[in-house]
Amino acid sequence: MGDNGHLHAMEDDEAATAEQSRAVRIYPLGNYYFGSKEPLLFKNETLADRLHRMKSNYAANGLRTCVEAVLLVELFKHPHLLLLQIRNSIFKLPGGRLRPNESDIDGLKRKLSRKLSANGTSDASDWEVGECLGMWWRPDFETLLYPYLSSNVKGAKECTKLFLVKLPESRKFIVPKNLKLIAVPLCQLHENQKTYGPVISGVPQLLSKFSFNIIEA
Amino acid sequence: MGDNGHLHAMEDDEAATAEQSRAVRIYPLGNYYFGSKEPLLFKNETLADRLHRMKSNYAANGLRTCVEAVLLVELFKHPHLLLLQIRNSIFKLPGGRLRPNESDIDGLKRKLSRKLSANGTSDASDWEVGECLGMWWRPDFETLLYPYLSSNVKGAKECTKLFLVKLPESRKFIVPKNLKLIAVPLCQLHENQKTYGPVISGVPQLLSKFSFNIIEA
Repeated sequence: MGDNGHLHAMEDDEAATAEQSRAVRIYPLGNYYFGSKEPLLFKNETLADRLHRMKSNYAANGLRTCVEAVLLVELFKHPHLLLLQIRNSIFKLPGGRLRPNESDIDGLKRKLSRKLSANGTSDASDWEVGECLGMWWRPDFETLLYPYLSSNVKGAKECTKLFLVKLPESRKFIVPKNLKLIAVPLCQLHENQKTYGPVISGVPQLLSKFSFNIIEA
Repeated sequence: MGDNGHLHAMEDDEAATAEQSRAVRIYPLGNYYFGSKEPLLFKNETLADRLHRMKSNYAANGLRTCVEAVLLVELFKHPHLLLLQIRNSIFKLPGGRLRPNESDIDGLKRKLSRKLSANGTSDASDWEVGECLGMWWRPDFETLLYPYLSSNVKGAKECTKLFLVKLPESRKFIVPKNLKLIAVPLCQLHENQKTYGPVISGVPQLLSKFSFNIIEA
């Protein structure tokens, strides 16, 4: 019994530590300031152009890696996910594609500053990148994303990694004029693949292991 | 630059550690032995009976907590999830309900031994319970499970926690005769809510942050 008791005590400590690390503080939407800056230039390309670009990039650099941020705020006592909306239709997590040899964390900070910070004012310490929540794979250029690698696929063409990014109590978001930053409740995302696609609609599941400490304004 | 360089080095170390902890070894299905034991007795109750039982249990003990195991094996170079099938229809993750005041880990080990080990031979060290992958909540007795708690719900009635359980290189599974233990590829579970329900069909997403080290037989 002595050994067993000791084992249990250790497990309880570990469980308590794990419990703490799974608690995420979120702050009211009203704590944040939202401004705008000049529009981002998007590639105005056809699907065929895009496919061609992806193929030649793959030939040159191999697997394309995208990093995306899960940023949360509180509204009506429910966690809301920050999404960028393009042309009143497509929803995207803030993030983008890594440069060759760029680390996940450096790349994500660069992309977040480009899309969410005032130009020239941002530095890497603006963003606290936390753990990787999930990865999605595109086995071929023309296929959808899957949350696993199939065994019959030689090399995946694209990998999208989602990271939890912890927001400070307050900050400014300065967003390009042709993008809209919106806050969507988790309950609206869940099982709403039609509107948000498989990756974003799956975020509530990826977050389900966390408890949210909602800090009152 | 010195401080910055130091910061980057620390992040790289952390990233490397995180990367290692996200690698999961899985072994071929053929490494495991499957046997059977006497059937488990199930409560043969109507939906109304079940509802009544859940309500009186909630009144007595509060939130009902279930713990379930994500157990993986390799087959055809693809990770497969072990599921229990009841009456050739319902699929379940191995696990069950905690006793009052029982810890998640103790309860899960007890349930796994009851459903997957020979009677009397099992001890807690049989099962290596890893991290919590996700939690699902039942806001009311008659509703579905959701991967978040709604703000307009006073107290949830049930919480189901999924844990990654790491299998050893080899072991025996001794399963009650009225249950079937089956291995289902992740690619068959994903987006197959109709067959497997929301919790099991979401497991591939919850596992997507891991890389699998498939150990050849």
